[in-house]
Amino acid sequence: MNLPPASIAGARSGAMPRAVTCINRRAAPGVDRLVEQADLLGVAVDAGPLGVRLIDAGIDAPGSTEAGLRIAQICLGGLGRVGLQALPREGWPAWLQVDSAQPVVACLGSQYAGWSLAASKEETGGRRFFSLGSGPARALAAKEALYAELGWRDEDRSRGGVLVLEVDRRPPEVVVRRLLRDCGLEGPELTLILTPTASRAGTAQVVARVLEVGLHRAHELKFPLADVLEGSACAPLPAPAGDAIEAMGRTNDAILYGGQVRLVVGGAVEAAEALARALPSAGSRDFGRPFAEIFRAADFDFYRIDPALFAPAEVWVSHPASGRTFHAGALRMDLLHAAWGG
Amino acid sequence: MNLPPASIAGARSGAMPRAVTCINRRAAPGVDRLVEQADLLGVAVDAGPLGVRLIDAGIDAPGSTEAGLRIAQICLGGLGRVGLQALPREGWPAWLQVDSAQPVVACLGSQYAGWSLAASKEETGGRRFFSLGSGPARALAAKEALYAELGWRDEDRSRGGVLVLEVDRRPPEVVVRRLLRDCGLEGPELTLILTPTASRAGTAQVVARVLEVGLHRAHELKFPLADVLEGSACAPLPAPAGDAIEAMGRTNDAILYGGQVRLVVGGAVEAAEALARALPSAGSRDFGRPFAEIFRAADFDFYRIDPALFAPAEVWVSHPASGRTFHAGALRMDLLHAAWGG
Amino acid sequence: MNLPPASIAGARSGAMPRAVTCINRRAAPGVDRLVEQADLLGVAVDAGPLGVRLIDAGIDAPGSTEAGLRIAQICLGGLGRVGLQALPREGWPAWLQVDSAQPVVACLGSQYAGWSLAASKEETGGRRFFSLGSGPARALAAKEALYAELGWRDEDRSRGGVLVLEVDRRPPEVVVRRLLRDCGLEGPELTLILTPTASRAGTAQVVARVLEVGLHRAHELKFPLADVLEGSACAPLPAPAGDAIEAMGRTNDAILYGGQVRLVVGGAVEAAEALARALPSAGSRDFGRPFAEIFRAADFDFYRIDPALFAPAEVWVSHPASGRTFHAGALRMDLLHAAWGG
Repeated sequence: MNLPPASIAGARSGAMPRAVTCINRRAAPGVDRLVEQADLLGVAVDAGPLGVRLIDAGIDAPGSTEAGLRIAQICLGGLGRVGLQALPREGWPAWLQVDSAQPVVACLGSQYAGWSLAASKEETGGRRFFSLGSGPARALAAKEALYAELGWRDEDRSRGGVLVLEVDRRPPEVVVRRLLRDCGLEGPELTLILTPTASRAGTAQVVARVLEVGLHRAHELKFPLADVLEGSACAPLPAPAGDAIEAMGRTNDAILYGGQVRLVVGGAVEAAEALARALPSAGSRDFGRPFAEIFRAADFDFYRIDPALFAPAEVWVSHPASGRTFHAGALRMDLLHAAWGG
Repeated sequence: MNLPPASIAGARSGAMPRAVTCINRRAAPGVDRLVEQADLLGVAVDAGPLGVRLIDAGIDAPGSTEAGLRIAQICLGGLGRVGLQALPREGWPAWLQVDSAQPVVACLGSQYAGWSLAASKEETGGRRFFSLGSGPARALAAKEALYAELGWRDEDRSRGGVLVLEVDRRPPEVVVRRLLRDCGLEGPELTLILTPTASRAGTAQVVARVLEVGLHRAHELKFPLADVLEGSACAPLPAPAGDAIEAMGRTNDAILYGGQVRLVVGGAVEAAEALARALPSAGSRDFGRPFAEIFRAADFDFYRIDPALFAPAEVWVSHPASGRTFHAGALRMDLLHAAWGG
Repeated sequence: MNLPPASIAGARSGAMPRAVTCINRRAAPGVDRLVEQADLLGVAVDAGPLGVRLIDAGIDAPGSTEAGLRIAQICLGGLGRVGLQALPREGWPAWLQVDSAQPVVACLGSQYAGWSLAASKEETGGRRFFSLGSGPARALAAKEALYAELGWRDEDRSRGGVLVLEVDRRPPEVVVRRLLRDCGLEGPELTLILTPTASRAGTAQVVARVLEVGLHRAHELKFPLADVLEGSACAPLPAPAGDAIEAMGRTNDAILYGGQVRLVVGGAVEAAEALARALPSAGSRDFGRPFAEIFRAADFDFYRIDPALFAPAEVWVSHPASGRTFHAGALRMDLLHAAWGG
């Protein structure tokens, strides 16, 4: 989900549990397999500016949903699982599911698209470049305010680093140079995975952020991250659309109207119940319209969209100390069928 | 599905994407695990005529559904995933799901039971032998017209070859000799997996052809194979029946009345929509009766059965360029419950 | 499920199929991964009395549902698969599924909590200790009458042994000494995994006994174990409750009112049908009330509870020889929602 990265900053700080770290090292075997199985997965691997490894998962190479699932697992820093379910439900043929025993580090510390990478026309000598970076290498650079809050960064460069860019062109040298400097890596140590939104891999890896969207919203609601114990989620997988705005709208709709999230939390039972009540997207004033339409009405400015919209449709919050599970929200498959159907 | 192999020949040729090859090598680790875990899976491994390796998955050995799932993955040339879902749905307790990022090669180039293996009484010195061969070694021999159309064959013999035979007896030496010659292999380099239809492994590995059946029907409908990008599918897993005709009927019924297939396709949006409308089994004049009954009425002659019947019950065809997903057909679980229930 | 171990003894003996053995060796790789990924899974590893390896999955360490799934697979002796499904169904967000191609050995020979481990105040020099042991090391000691009936024990100590204890404190030295003696192991060769009922790992690993509960009940109903060919099952995963009795009640309720079991059996078709009719928990006079309430009414004495209650809610029994599948029982999600909801 393309939330402005700044929006995570204001939330109240919670003491984090002892960190599960080394997310770049943990993600490395998944990157190795992506490269080894490049032909099966439809991705292309070559060298980019300054010798970084580029994995094209949908620009010139076709990519695939399966590539997107693998990229999503890499993006979780090796701390979660992402799968395709081919059992139709709610009238839709394919669903993604994701779960993690370390959701805060996996989703916010790694998967969240929180790193703004921009270069002006002057810098690129051509077109302006902008991308949000997501994935483990964010935690090597730790440029975002979030890492101070988490009190944690990844210091393990033994297997290099990996970052996912939701772009439809290769990053210019000026951006790559900054990435390497900020991550403390030499060119060949960094892998950049490129996933256009309007590609199969890009759609899958964004829809696989359904759990992250739930956590991000919980954070904005000032629920203490240290009290989030584990989580799982699912969302329907749409066909991508040829148009980038439309494709981005669909991945958001998949989560806002089709996302189902389960969080297991500690802390006070009242806080767990309040979280469940506040979390679903139905609490937003913009709820009920396709995201692409809302985005256009906001003049393509994320900051003008109600932050409460960036949330899953339906949630369960389980609280082990009391044994209670709070449920709120509901699927709106009618909207998805209308928007995605034939 | 036991379609006559000739039926695939007439369809119009489509330019194939650059081939994912080496399917025998890719399938080899799965064969290794099947052998290593033979006791767990209930299969028996020994040497057959001319030193080929025989894996008995249901003749004298009991086999298991789990063995059938493993065999199905081998049969997909290591290019797909097959799993058992133990979450009851539609009133049925177990479903198989399959997906592949390379469905044309996996399903038609490897899994399709397209290689006729026959030997007369005179040749065997005993009973007549007939089997359809499926799996990766078909692409070593490339005897079928399909391979000319695909413009592709497997040249990699570094890990030998593997073929699945849906039979209830061991193949005679004359058949094995021809197989070795056609595949270009020495005896010990070839593994033959034997799965009687009326066995648990046999039932599972045939029901796991649900995606292949969808692709095969798309091909017959002259949808260009080069435009099939990826696919997933599921079908209910019946108990096998003791009688071979009845058992074969059940595996077909599982697909015709319980199979759900999702294809992601390129090309023109009109072609995608037309494919969805034409694909489901409900378009056949024979739709609605148990397959074993239809087969008996056709005097056990596949060629007299309407080819449109060999199709999944319900389909979704997604078309990324337009973002549209076309849906057609429906489950007929009422027929399956009546036929399979207590 | 905490059934008195003696209850398994009375059933009629069936000739077992040739044993799949070496369950401690087969479980060892799973134990290795649990240790390697201790930080991800929230478990703590250290040495206990006499040098045994202790894995704390919920006493001082937090543990996790994912740890519970891994422990459940270990507990099945490496002969089964346990997974979390994050696709909500029946209004509940998370379900466990389990399947095995060798369910009798996996569930009864390994997973069943059949080994009583007790030490008096005098022996411990402190509090009385009691635990039921489950998992592969039971088959090294083979102290239970069940092993005579199965005609089988595990003789392979090459990778040591592993036992799961559903306890909230570490076992005293006197208990560990007896375990080592009975198992024929030196201290460092034995791994003890400690899972309090009122923990996330403990809840998951007990709910993952849903298939075992079906098999155990089948055994009590005198269905021949040798005729059980394979099985799969699922059950909803509750939040644990802080109170141990309440937590134990929930894991039982998950199975009694939410458990769905599929067994594939040989033997006479009449026996298969009779098994399906008799198996579901609805056949018990205590059916319909929360287990914790029943347990309290029985003065916390398992022996006073109707054994027919310890059964899954809904079953399918498939009989390949006849091709018939018998279905009985039904979910009672209304009871679970009332007990577990917000």
